[in-house]
Order: sequence, then structure tokens, then C-alpha cells
Amino acid sequence: MASAEHIQALNDAANRMRISAIQMTCTANSGHPTSSCSAAEILATLFFDEMRYDKDCPKDPSADRFVLSKGHACPILYAAWEEAGHLSHDQVQSLRKIDSDVEGHPTPRLDFIDVATGSLGQGLSCAAGMAYVGKYIDKASYRVYCLLGDGESAEGSVWEAAGFSSYYKLDNLVAIVDVNRLGQSQPTMLGHNTDAYAKRFEAFGFSAIVVDGNDVSQLLKAFHNARETKGKPTAIIAKTFKGKGIENIEDKENWHGKPVPLETIKAIEARIKDKTGKGKLVIKKPINDAPAVDLRVGSIKMEPPNYKKGDSVATRAAYGTALAKIGDACPRVIGLDGDTKNSTYSEKLLKKHPEQFIECFIAEQNLVGVAIGAGCRGRTIPFTSTFAAFFTRATDQLRMGAISFANLKCAGSHAGVSIGEDGPSQMALEDLAIFRAIPSSTVFYPSDGVSTERATELAANTPGIVFIRTGRPANPVIYDNNEDFQIGKGKVVRESDNDNILLIGAGVTLFECIKAADALAADGVHACIIDPFTIKPIDKELIVKHAKRVGGRILTVEDHYPAGGIGEAVSAAVADEAGVRVRSLCVTGVPRSGPPSALLDMFGISAKKIVAEVHKFN
Amino acid sequence: MASAEHIQALNDAANRMRISAIQMTCTANSGHPTSSCSAAEILATLFFDEMRYDKDCPKDPSADRFVLSKGHACPILYAAWEEAGHLSHDQVQSLRKIDSDVEGHPTPRLDFIDVATGSLGQGLSCAAGMAYVGKYIDKASYRVYCLLGDGESAEGSVWEAAGFSSYYKLDNLVAIVDVNRLGQSQPTMLGHNTDAYAKRFEAFGFSAIVVDGNDVSQLLKAFHNARETKGKPTAIIAKTFKGKGIENIEDKENWHGKPVPLETIKAIEARIKDKTGKGKLVIKKPINDAPAVDLRVGSIKMEPPNYKKGDSVATRAAYGTALAKIGDACPRVIGLDGDTKNSTYSEKLLKKHPEQFIECFIAEQNLVGVAIGAGCRGRTIPFTSTFAAFFTRATDQLRMGAISFANLKCAGSHAGVSIGEDGPSQMALEDLAIFRAIPSSTVFYPSDGVSTERATELAANTPGIVFIRTGRPANPVIYDNNEDFQIGKGKVVRESDNDNILLIGAGVTLFECIKAADALAADGVHACIIDPFTIKPIDKELIVKHAKRVGGRILTVEDHYPAGGIGEAVSAAVADEAGVRVRSLCVTGVPRSGPPSALLDMFGISAKKIVAEVHKFN
Repeated sequence: MASAEHIQALNDAANRMRISAIQMTCTANSGHPTSSCSAAEILATLFFDEMRYDKDCPKDPSADRFVLSKGHACPILYAAWEEAGHLSHDQVQSLRKIDSDVEGHPTPRLDFIDVATGSLGQGLSCAAGMAYVGKYIDKASYRVYCLLGDGESAEGSVWEAAGFSSYYKLDNLVAIVDVNRLGQSQPTMLGHNTDAYAKRFEAFGFSAIVVDGNDVSQLLKAFHNARETKGKPTAIIAKTFKGKGIENIEDKENWHGKPVPLETIKAIEARIKDKTGKGKLVIKKPINDAPAVDLRVGSIKMEPPNYKKGDSVATRAAYGTALAKIGDACPRVIGLDGDTKNSTYSEKLLKKHPEQFIECFIAEQNLVGVAIGAGCRGRTIPFTSTFAAFFTRATDQLRMGAISFANLKCAGSHAGVSIGEDGPSQMALEDLAIFRAIPSSTVFYPSDGVSTERATELAANTPGIVFIRTGRPANPVIYDNNEDFQIGKGKVVRESDNDNILLIGAGVTLFECIKAADALAADGVHACIIDPFTIKPIDKELIVKHAKRVGGRILTVEDHYPAGGIGEAVSAAVADEAGVRVRSLCVTGVPRSGPPSALLDMFGISAKKIVAEVHKFN
Repeated sequence: MASAEHIQALNDAANRMRISAIQMTCTANSGHPTSSCSAAEILATLFFDEMRYDKDCPKDPSADRFVLSKGHACPILYAAWEEAGHLSHDQVQSLRKIDSDVEGHPTPRLDFIDVATGSLGQGLSCAAGMAYVGKYIDKASYRVYCLLGDGESAEGSVWEAAGFSSYYKLDNLVAIVDVNRLGQSQPTMLGHNTDAYAKRFEAFGFSAIVVDGNDVSQLLKAFHNARETKGKPTAIIAKTFKGKGIENIEDKENWHGKPVPLETIKAIEARIKDKTGKGKLVIKKPINDAPAVDLRVGSIKMEPPNYKKGDSVATRAAYGTALAKIGDACPRVIGLDGDTKNSTYSEKLLKKHPEQFIECFIAEQNLVGVAIGAGCRGRTIPFTSTFAAFFTRATDQLRMGAISFANLKCAGSHAGVSIGEDGPSQMALEDLAIFRAIPSSTVFYPSDGVSTERATELAANTPGIVFIRTGRPANPVIYDNNEDFQIGKGKVVRESDNDNILLIGAGVTLFECIKAADALAADGVHACIIDPFTIKPIDKELIVKHAKRVGGRILTVEDHYPAGGIGEAVSAAVADEAGVRVRSLCVTGVPRSGPPSALLDMFGISAKKIVAEVHKFN
């Protein structure tokens, strides 16, 4: 039982945090004080009673983690770190200024934030990834807390994360739902029906506890119960009021995302009993049982590829082979898949190192979210895989992953129409556009077994979001096992002194280019062929050099839609070069079921179509 | 109570359908017979007892709708339409052939399919959209049935749809979950725990009924109960076996997505009692109470814009104004939003025509899915809106929408760094890349109030997926109210005989271009400025004409990341033109919080940065 003094001290802390949140949003003249105030007691109880952390070293590997899924409520989070003594009042007062890392929504530019939030519904997946690593990989005592809004619980990703968390019995994970009843533009679907929330979390395998979320003593008990609950995660359903404690604004509509009058802090100040209480609450220290991990960039060396030139290998299979070998090299390389592991070949890692594999089932948003969480603080190097088409399901998670500066590897199989009979729903034709659009991403599109294995090895050693596009059909190995591959460096696959056209293809279309070049040679047209290896960055220097050498004509060929693919990447790369012209063959309409070779031809990217286009290109 | 004869006839139909599904996948030598066979009794009962439809006119506006969310099981759906007499045996035997519309996963190339499926977890949102229209807009008797797989219930989009369906009391909607226990690569998370599924659907506001899904009499009772249940949708949790009825394969792992031995049909044939039963089951006729609707392309005329040149208007506000006016013009124009209606200004339609507005809360996958369903069979013209950044959440739904040939309008507000202090999580900087990559999409990026209103009117009159990018800050109106706008036609905003650079910008960057041109003119550099109006299609002719006129230099400026945006669209458009060179200013790293004008400058797209770049561009 907590003492009355301790409860009062936590209430005082909550009210000081409220005041700071109101002040900083008044100074910024924008932000979300009402969404902050509903959660003041929740954060005060968490930060000054429940959680174990080192205020001077928020990234301590053994420290409990906190994820603010309702990212717009960050003023109260900043206020908590101010109350803890990690941020100064001046720092939090710099909220939303262009030279301040105290941003309008949380980003890991601040050392106590692991993942960016602000696109709702994503935090619980990241928290689940951290909790999975804590329980099964670090095997440590630290716990993970995630605060959600009630409005965001309409997001399906919350329920993907919930199903995952109970399936893996993450009893070191606590979700807290701040049920403040009001969304941005109107009341939420469930209003203050806390029982409905509890029923939903229970149905998804959580232990659920309903509390008055502005009552510190109820919160203390709930966190204690959560800690005692074994074999399942806990959800604390906290009934609160938006703008709690702000006179004439509490529980009122039309106060979302705007500052409140500064004078409202006076009444809050009056409720603080110990005016000198700041800094007196004792923060619990971490239990130092998380192992030291040092995943230095460039440290992972893979056993070399082992093919013969001409061997028939699908790049997706080569990815699996390489992933398993990287798993040999580093026990912190983990694989995550969405029930496609026998198609993406990530199962090769599972078979060799089951403890390095997380089956995430058919829930791609959570697949990516868990991986982002698992990669935080350098605890693991997560490789996710599914059909490339299904990574589109997690586009928003990838977008936020970039803002999180996440270290995340994505291998997408079944690229393009060359998958054949399964039809357009399974064909990735926009994946290059999406992954290229992610800031600071690296996009590999290897064409044979050797280059795919090297792409996978490079991915493990490259920070940030990396995409590897793999294909379904088998194609010949064209590179020596000891060929050196580098990011941003293409390969000239064929050249002669007589070349008068430059062909650029990748994956299946590289082999169509080779076939086309054979046919063109018979007609006296000589094609130089470049395998770009990475589409981002693209090897501008090599392309420009050979384009000029062959007389300025480039034809790109890709199993992808026009926008954002190889054609546009090449066009943009040579855009500032006078005298270099680019034409592109790509898939321009919704494809259909059929045999791969027939589809390549029907959608205009076969050797035959390349030959015809080259003859037209004057 | 159904007679024993009727039950036997339904069992016979189920077994004939099983046989056909096995045969067609054997002929195709690929496909999903085991995922089909678990659902044979469910489809037989639906198609030959429960559903009302016209087998000769599947699109009849009063007919019940069926959505196969587990799209890979389409062989059993094709077999049902064969059993009904709508498809011939030869047609279903053409499964997966390149000249056949009987594809590997369902697409609306077939007249009995409303929405493409095959990316799991999306069907229930579309079905909910149809049911919403049936209940509240058509006010008709038709009912909507959606068959889900158990594996796909891990997808969060299922729970977004479930929450929506109960909130709107869609008692004309029935979800059936085919709990066959086995996923693609291993058992599902919940296996045969049918009670867990029931608990989840009940928690999300459904009436849930657990049945033996291979028992026709239990299915008949469950459908009857669903029909009697008022005020909430029903979920039938059907315990089944994957490969049900196939000797030595039923309930076995490693039989996902591959043909089974053809001789397994013999044992199934032996179970059919009435060998001459095909065609004897009576299909119930629709109740003809859905109104006739004629939404001809081009028929919607909006009241003209009403601005003065120089008025300060945010394009998002102009969108709302136009949407409300289009709502005046056509009662079947509907607005859908995800709790951002006071930011996107779609609330202007809600205020004028509440019956034409559907609040979808914070669940963007379902927002898009419901809209796709609502637009089916030309029943409505759905306009969805949210922050453009949050449409990324529905990228897979948009991808599938294209394969559905959906008629869907998306208005995304808060584009780019110019939103300011809220920070990167709220800034759309990849939306042009994503929407441009959708086949046959149209992408508007209007810059002032007049052109935004016209873009909205054109969107209503343009079939397919249309995106309108709007901005947060107010900018001056620059066009006359009677200016004519067309898709694919840009506007020359400034030109002179002395021009020596072409600037292309849109939204906020168009105004930065104008400011830059003023400054450049003082230095003796004369800029032609083009407002592209649509980014897809882009006005290649106009751009090339003016690029050549000014001496070949184009500078694009956009509030978007480099890949897939205006710079690449323009580079690709002029790629085949010798002597035209393009440089691009765009946002190249993850932005941050700050004042809009400071961010434009910090991220290199301000007038000042344009001036500097033009001076460097020789």
C-alpha cells in the first residue's frame, strides 16, 4: 500500500507536469495540452513509482522502456522528463522551435525516445518488439510500457500487436489506454465505455484492468497487478477526461490540438500541496541484467556464396541462404515473417536458428512495427520478409520507421508480373517507388544468386531502412562467387566497342535484356547492358559514362509500374545531362494471371519487346 | 427446418463444387484447392439457400452481395457460379490461363465480383461499405456476406471493419470465418479455438455463432439467426478442415496453394447421392427495392468558384467548399473521413448534407475499404479525406482498389513541410510517389482556391482512383473563377519573351517560384513558371514547348521527397528530349518541427533557395 504522502507527491508531480505542458504549448502557440492533461497521473505514476530507469542515461540497456503511442500528447512526456531532471525548463519551453529537438510529435532526436510516434496506432507493435527482445533474446528484467489513446484503438494495427503480444505471452508488456472520450473532431466510437475496451483486450488475450486513470492510487494497484500477472500482457483501461484539471475546458469538445489560456495554470498550482516537492520523488534504478551488445556497422561477415555460373537460382532462395549464413555470423540477426516463410525462404534461418526467428503471422503492419521495436537501441538487426506486394500494407509504419531512424531490413519476394498465375494481387509493381521514397533508404534489386547474397550481407552492415527486392522464378547465376559488390555501384554485364544502345534491367528483365542483346547483335545493333544492383542510390556515374559512350540512348526495362521505378530513377539521374535520352519499358496497366513468360510479353517487358523498342528508338 | 432432401441436395452441391475446384486447379497445375474445400458447404449453403440473386445478372442492384475476402479460395467461388449455371465447366477449367478472366485470385473482370481480393484482410471493409450503402443510402433489402479465412483475421483491417460495422449497426452484414486451422506455412495463431474468434467478434460488437462449418444444417440455422438479429452484424465462426473431403490431405500441413492428386475426386463423387442433381436447387430471387441510380461520368456540375483574385485561401478549405457543392449537385456523392474532418474541411459536406457523410474514425485502411465498397456497382461516388500522410496507412487497399477498378476519390491534406510545427509524422512527403504508382490513377496538385474547386469537380467526373493533394497554409487565389481546367493541362503562370529558365512548382512551391522569379528578374534572369495542375498525367507537351523556348533548363521545386514526385515526373516526361535538362529542389532528409517558412528554407525549397539554384544552373 502506498502512503498518503507518496500518493500526494505523485499528484503534485502530475500537476506540475500539467502546468509545464500548458506553459510549453502556450509558448509554442500550438500543440496538444488537453490530450496531455488526461494522462498526467498515468505518466506521473509510471515515471515516479513504477518504472526503473536511469534519468541520466535513458538508453541504458536494462532500463524499462516507455512508448507514447498517442504521440500528440508529448508535452506531458517532456514534462515528465523535466520533472525527472533530465530536461531543463528552458528545454521544454523550446517546444516546436526549429532549432529544438523537443518536437511537435516525439522523435528519437531526443535520447529518451526509441521510436517516433504521431501516426496513431503504431506504438504497441514497437513496444511488443521491445518486449519480445527483452523476454526472449535479452532474457532481462526490463519491462515495456505503452500509452495509447482511446481514439487510436480504432486502428487495426493495435489489434495486430495485441494478438501478437498474447500469442508470445509478453507478460513484460503493459498497454495503458487513456480513455479520455474525445477525438479530434468528435467523441470516439466507444466514448467512456471502458468495459468495451476491457472486453476487446481480454478477447485478444490480455489481462485487462479498468481504473480511474486520474486516480494515482488505482493506477499504482493496476501496475502492481500487471507486474504479478504471468503468461500474458496486461492492458490498463484508464477512464480519464480530456483536459483534466483545466477549468472550463475539461471534458469539453473543440479543444483538441490547441493551447489553452495560460491563466488556467493558477487553479492547478493551487492544488499542489508540497510547493518544494520537485525532485524529491525517488526514481527506481534499473536491474542490470541485460547483456552488452555491440553490433558495429560493418562487423558482420558472411560465408561467401557457393554457386557455379549458370546454376539456376531464384533470388528469393538466395536471400534465404544468405540470411541463414548471416544468422550463423551474428546471433543478434533475427528474421521476422508474415506466414510466407516457405515462399520468401526466410525459413532457412528458422530451421538453423529457431531462437533467431519470430513468426508474425498475417499482419504486416505489426511485422514491421515489431521489427522496428526489436532493432531499437541496437539490440538486434531485424530482417523482415513477406511478398513485396504485402509490404505496401506497412507503408505508414515504414514512413514512421524513417522518422525513427530505424535499423530495419525488408526483403520483398514475388516482384512483378513474372510471378505468373497467382495474378495481380500478389505482384509487387509499386514497391520500388515506395521504398525509394523513404528518406535515407537503400534499395537493392539483385539479379542473381551471388549478388543477392552480397546484397543481404551489405544490408546487415548498412544502417537504416534497407529493401531487397527478390523474384519468384529461377534465373542463371552470372557472377563469380568472389565478385565484389558495393552499394551504388552497378555492373556492366555486356559491352563492346561497337555499342550503340545502353540497356538497363534488373531481376528477370536483366535476363530479357541479355536475350534481346543476342537478338539485336544478329541485326547489327550492339547493346551495352548494365545491372544497377542498387536502385537507390543508383550508379549515376557508370550510367552516364556508358550512355555517352554508346551515343546517348538508354532503354530501361523493369517489372514495375512506371512511377518511381528504374525508369524514373535513371531519368532523374541523367536529367541534367544534355545529349542523353531515356526510354522506358515497364508494366503500364493492371496485369492478370498467366504464365510468367507470356505476361512479360503481354506487358511489354520481354526480350522481343525490347528488340522492337530498340529498333524504334532513333 | 430444412428437409433432409434439401440438406442432401446442398451437400451434393458442395461436393460437386469441391470436385470442380480440384479439377480446375489440376488443369491449371496451381492454385488453392485445400483452402477451397474447407469452405464448400459454406458457399453451397449461401448460394443455394440463403442468398437472393439473379444468376443471369449478378450486378442486379437489389441482389445480395458476396465478398470472398480469402481470395485464394476462388476455385470454390468459381465452382459455385458454375453450379448456379452462370459459368460453364469450360470457363472454370480455363482458370489462371492468360486469356481467361477466371484468374488466380478474384478480380472484377468477372461480372459477379465487386472487389478484387487476394491481399488478405480487406474484404470485410468493402463488404461493410456495401452494407452501409444498402441500409442507409439505398435503404433496400439486400444483404451482404463476407467469407474470411482464419489466418487473415490476424490482419488489423478486419478489426477496423468490425468496429465500424457494429458502430453503424449493420445488421444486413454477415461475416463468416472459415476456421480451417492451417495457414500457408504453419498452423494459425488460434488453431481451432473457435471460442476465441467468437469472443473477439462479440467484443467488437457482433453477434457471434459458432458452428461446424462443414455441416449444412448448422450453417442454415446460423444464417437464419443472423437474419433475425437486429441492430448488430453477425459473425458465423465456422470450424472446418483445410482440404475437407480430400483423402489423406484433409487437415494436413504442407498442402497450401498446390494442386492435389486428381484421383481424390473419386471418393468425393461417391458421396454425391443425386447424380443428376446439378441445376435442381432453386436460387432465391432478389427483392427489387434498390433504387435505380445513374451516375454517368461527366454528369456532375458544380456551382462555380466564388473568389476574388488575391483572396487568401488554403487549398484544403477550397476542397471542402467544393465537396459541399458537389454534394448539392448529386445526392450520391458521399464524404468519408477519419476523424480529421475539421482539418481536411470535409466537415463542410457533413454540415450541409449529414446523410451524405460517413465518419470512419481513426482507421484509414477501413476508410478506404469502406469507400471502395460504397462505390461498387456505381451506387455512390465516394470522396475520402484525411491527412495525406495517413493515406499511406491504406497503400495496400489503394493498390487493391486499382485491381478492383474502383471509383475512389482521395483528398489528402497537410502536404509537406509547409504544415510546420506538428513535425514530420504529420507531413506527407511520399504521397505523390504512392498515388502516381497506382495504375490508371489521376493525381491533382492544385495551387489555389479556384483550381482546387475545379480539381474536385473533375475528380467527381473522372472514373478510377483520383488523388487531390491539398495544403495547410493559405495562399492567394491566382485564377479567375471562370478559368477552364482540364486533366493533363498545365497553366503558364508567368512568361516573357526573354525567359531563360523554366520553373515548375505546385502548391506552396508555386508561390515560392513566383517570389523567386520576382527576385531573379531584378538580376536580369527571366523565369517562365508552369503550374502543372495534374502531376499525373503531366502536361508533357506544354513543358517541352516552354523548356525549348527558354533554352532547355527546367528547375522543379516541390514539397515532397525526391523519389516519385514532380521532379521525377518531369524528368521522365522530358527524358526522350535531347537538349532539355532538369534539376530538382525537394525535401531530401527527414524534416522537423518549426515555422513553415523557416522549414521551406531549411529544406531547400524556398524562394531564396530557388534563386540560388537558378544562379548555379548553367
